[in-house]
Amino acid sequence: MLLDDERLDYLLAEDLRIIQSPSVFSFSLDAVLLARFAYVPLKRGKIVDLCTGNGAIPLFLSARTESAIVGVELQERLVHMAQRSVAYNGLEEQIQIIEGDVKEIPARLGIEKYDVVTCNPPYFPAHELSDKNLSEHMAIARHELHLTLDESVQAASKLLKQGGKAAFVHRSGRLIDIITAMRANRLEPKRVRLVYPKAGKEANTLLIEGIKDGKPDLKILPPLIVYGENGEYTEEVRELLYGNE
Amino acid sequence: MLLDDERLDYLLAEDLRIIQSPSVFSFSLDAVLLARFAYVPLKRGKIVDLCTGNGAIPLFLSARTESAIVGVELQERLVHMAQRSVAYNGLEEQIQIIEGDVKEIPARLGIEKYDVVTCNPPYFPAHELSDKNLSEHMAIARHELHLTLDESVQAASKLLKQGGKAAFVHRSGRLIDIITAMRANRLEPKRVRLVYPKAGKEANTLLIEGIKDGKPDLKILPPLIVYGENGEYTEEVRELLYGNE
Repeated sequence: MLLDDERLDYLLAEDLRIIQSPSVFSFSLDAVLLARFAYVPLKRGKIVDLCTGNGAIPLFLSARTESAIVGVELQERLVHMAQRSVAYNGLEEQIQIIEGDVKEIPARLGIEKYDVVTCNPPYFPAHELSDKNLSEHMAIARHELHLTLDESVQAASKLLKQGGKAAFVHRSGRLIDIITAMRANRLEPKRVRLVYPKAGKEANTLLIEGIKDGKPDLKILPPLIVYGENGEYTEEVRELLYGNE
Repeated sequence: MLLDDERLDYLLAEDLRIIQSPSVFSFSLDAVLLARFAYVPLKRGKIVDLCTGNGAIPLFLSARTESAIVGVELQERLVHMAQRSVAYNGLEEQIQIIEGDVKEIPARLGIEKYDVVTCNPPYFPAHELSDKNLSEHMAIARHELHLTLDESVQAASKLLKQGGKAAFVHRSGRLIDIITAMRANRLEPKRVRLVYPKAGKEANTLLIEGIKDGKPDLKILPPLIVYGENGEYTEEVRELLYGNE
């Protein structure tokens, strides 16, 4: 079942397993944070995760909801990894992983049919791609080579019903860009959470959720600090990763 | 020198005195935070503080810079208080308090002549003015009766030279509005700091600084927590208020 350098890693808090590969794709802490931050209905509703990679976010969400989840990924190799992880966990009934270009997905899955969209898009502008040793898989996942921030926000909005929620994770330096893109696409930002690597440091990551055609009323949630003074995860992050033990 | 219920309060960290009145105007912690957050040149440069109230921000800034500071206030009663405080501290050479409407101030003081503008504008929409017992002085200072957020951002931008800096404090729920207004007025947001009343609570205040015609590059500074678990000011806020003793 495992190809090349793939490993079967644990998602401890969810008691699930996921296929990862150091050379092709491994999910990041940001995917964990987004999966915890996003609102999800307990039972009803339909969820789409854009840029799903190896399917980490659908797997995380499956522990929090009985809703059907579609994961969309451009790269065939990653789609294959995600599908095998879904099958390994016996979640084929709940999670469907499809190969596709996010820009074309609303026309394919249906306009205004979904309740929640999550998206951990490529973070870095295409022109910042300086690391020639990055594998093509990694480059596509991390850089805006095939999908810009604007395009991912637009796709999310098209998929959502009125009142549906879209949640994104991105670099905090893109705060203005993501707010602008959301407002331009009828997604009113309602909740923001900033993620700081350490106390006393600048933020490096942001979580943001908007409601389609929602009223302006922004809440800024408490800061999330990732590492403590000792260089280890803070208690809050440990709980997100490993659950309450 | 003191009228009605006025008091002569201490600005401890600056070793200055300020005239305040519980029924007319007292500066808030937000003014202190803005005065510490704003960039100010050490010696050269010209500074304007819009919505200066009883002149707290010019007084705070005078301890950090030798630059000339103009404070602009709409209400004659507050202008008078501020002028008496400036005189009491012997700062007439450095600080000038003028009575005027912020919307008309750029034409009066000069377009693109200033290096730094600070502004702690009225926070609340005019239609939210429900407290009929609020004095007219307080109502004008707190509610957008004579000046909206857009208008204060526009005035700040007009006053500033290219490359000049504008710093604002506002309610964190207005983050999107202030970013939108700044970008619409050539002020590129460069530094944001969110202020949380307590650890684990949502933010209630934001500090933001932009550069006129600056390049997009936003930094989100570490969170500022006002009160500790014991209900007293945190060490950082105590230092801002009382200085290093």
